[in-house]
Amino acid sequence: MPDRSATAIACANIAFIKYWGNRDARLRLPSNGSISMNLGGLFTRTRVTWAELRVTSNESQEQDSLVINNKPITGAGLSRVSTFLDEVRRMAGIKSRAEVVSENNFPSSAGIASSASAFAALALAASAAAGLELSQAELSRLARRGSGSACRSIPGGFVEWQAGTGDADSYAVSIAPPEHWPLADCVAVVSHAHKATGSTEGHALAATSPLQAARVADAPRRLDLCRRAILSRDFEAFAGIAELDSNLMHTVMMTSNPPLFYWQPATLTIMQAVREWRASGLPVCYTIDAGPNVHVITEAAEAERVAALLANMPGVQKVLAAQVGGAGAVQFLPSTKRVTVQACHPEGAFCATEGSQGQSEEILRRWKNTSGSE
Amino acid sequence: MPDRSATAIACANIAFIKYWGNRDARLRLPSNGSISMNLGGLFTRTRVTWAELRVTSNESQEQDSLVINNKPITGAGLSRVSTFLDEVRRMAGIKSRAEVVSENNFPSSAGIASSASAFAALALAASAAAGLELSQAELSRLARRGSGSACRSIPGGFVEWQAGTGDADSYAVSIAPPEHWPLADCVAVVSHAHKATGSTEGHALAATSPLQAARVADAPRRLDLCRRAILSRDFEAFAGIAELDSNLMHTVMMTSNPPLFYWQPATLTIMQAVREWRASGLPVCYTIDAGPNVHVITEAAEAERVAALLANMPGVQKVLAAQVGGAGAVQFLPSTKRVTVQACHPEGAFCATEGSQGQSEEILRRWKNTSGSE
Repeated sequence: MPDRSATAIACANIAFIKYWGNRDARLRLPSNGSISMNLGGLFTRTRVTWAELRVTSNESQEQDSLVINNKPITGAGLSRVSTFLDEVRRMAGIKSRAEVVSENNFPSSAGIASSASAFAALALAASAAAGLELSQAELSRLARRGSGSACRSIPGGFVEWQAGTGDADSYAVSIAPPEHWPLADCVAVVSHAHKATGSTEGHALAATSPLQAARVADAPRRLDLCRRAILSRDFEAFAGIAELDSNLMHTVMMTSNPPLFYWQPATLTIMQAVREWRASGLPVCYTIDAGPNVHVITEAAEAERVAALLANMPGVQKVLAAQVGGAGAVQFLPSTKRVTVQACHPEGAFCATEGSQGQSEEILRRWKNTSGSE
Repeated sequence: MPDRSATAIACANIAFIKYWGNRDARLRLPSNGSISMNLGGLFTRTRVTWAELRVTSNESQEQDSLVINNKPITGAGLSRVSTFLDEVRRMAGIKSRAEVVSENNFPSSAGIASSASAFAALALAASAAAGLELSQAELSRLARRGSGSACRSIPGGFVEWQAGTGDADSYAVSIAPPEHWPLADCVAVVSHAHKATGSTEGHALAATSPLQAARVADAPRRLDLCRRAILSRDFEAFAGIAELDSNLMHTVMMTSNPPLFYWQPATLTIMQAVREWRASGLPVCYTIDAGPNVHVITEAAEAERVAALLANMPGVQKVLAAQVGGAGAVQFLPSTKRVTVQACHPEGAFCATEGSQGQSEEILRRWKNTSGSE
């Protein structure tokens, strides 16, 4: 087999009904279904090149290689990717090693998990380069094996990951396209610190909380409420269920053994402000992943105002904003660095700022410059 | 019946396994059992005087009267006390009105609920003045009717409120006397603001959280762990279960409908600091009631150091410290203002400070001056 290469991109996503805990950690079969929105403009681009199959007596020479954001990765990071690539090798019936080169267009300090977009892009690129022609459901299942939430970065827009009964039916589907409801996610970054406990370890602790079973048992009700709120574009209903679900995940985290506290004082300040802003009529709600940063969801038309409000809150180091993003996409572009990002909706604007005061105008300027919908 | 008067005192208490939610709101039968420690030196003193029975055609003239901290109370506050006194009237077979004069020796801004000590002292004084000779269990049951946690301020030291099967067996008993384990509660007061949602309303919301049933179902396990930790004076085990239980109550609060957030940013800062102090070897753990203030439990020998640490934390307005208190006690002292506080362990020291910086020495001085165990 000659060298085969493919490049793919996939957006990050933010969950409104959260994934926390697996019923099968190896297969990453989740304890409950989840619902998310892709983050337009915030994506990982990954190129996978399968080397010609060489058989040597020394298998250690046949390692995959991995470069992320121009840095060679070895150790646990490479090992996780190789385990993932083993699944692709098994599906394609090949034994080649792969070269993986990956870049995120959002900084690691952005308060946005990169494993979802990274494994979604890797699933797309690795399978395409290996000659596999997978359906969206098969791609979503494959991405799930690398990182659970990655399965939600395969379809576009608003996405639901069905918990399923096993590997075969545990994948994500789009429940509404990006244009269905122009929402935006304004991420208030309150800390650049690397999170103390990674998601993979965290998922394993979920079952040690006396509350996890109740959270999981109640998930179908929340999924139903969230899906209906999205389909009917009912922001008030959406806000209530998204905040409840975020609180439920963090309460399980805080009551696991050992307890995981991701909230910082500034996190709590912003949560309270968001509830007050909503009470005064602004369509905003918060959702928080396994970290201290606050994702403030709003209508796209209010994103400038919300980003400005957040930028002036104490403890906020940076605000990013993204609109609803599209599906992951693969491209056979082995030799170029240029990638079209059509699928990820480049107009899902990306705005960032540093500093703590007087930055609102800078945010607004960048938002206007990059936002195609303005 | 001639005028009969009695004065009683009862300590405040702090729960380690929390009471949150009733299975019968009228009888204040709790959803789960709880464990607490009395706070020595922080008490309510209440005098009840039953007027001679007069029958008039106008029943409105026969209202009870209530004075708390020298302020006449009417409206909902008086109504709650009158409803409680109705139960005493029923038990004693009298129809007299009562004059109730009550004082807390801790400020309302102390971050310590006064309803427990208040209804415990009222139960003691009202029943004694009415000529009832109640057992400790009967007194605890009676106090429970006024405020659930008040039933725990009747027995001394470390106390367990058995959820029971009904009114008859839902009362508190001492599981260890004050001298069993010299602990102290250092209360970091971060806000003087009146709490947004009172406990009675909060209890009614508990069942709206999808997590309350799981919290309640797991309570026997936590009660067992906490009781064992206290009986064996195992601080590490005690710290783990007390913090878990506090987190569990707040997670139920945060996920009820509407959600109740009692934590403030400073609350979270102190919680984190306490975990770090414990990790570095200091015997400390936190527990938080329906408010933003943090009760930091430590060994009495470390209380000075812990109070000083807390006083220098950002956002801390005041620190109080109390050692383990004794049982509530009644005294027939109708005509004097002097009360012996032996039963409440006056040596359970009371130290307070105002301001935000450089107050450690003041705390230490007061602690030494008032602490009989130094």
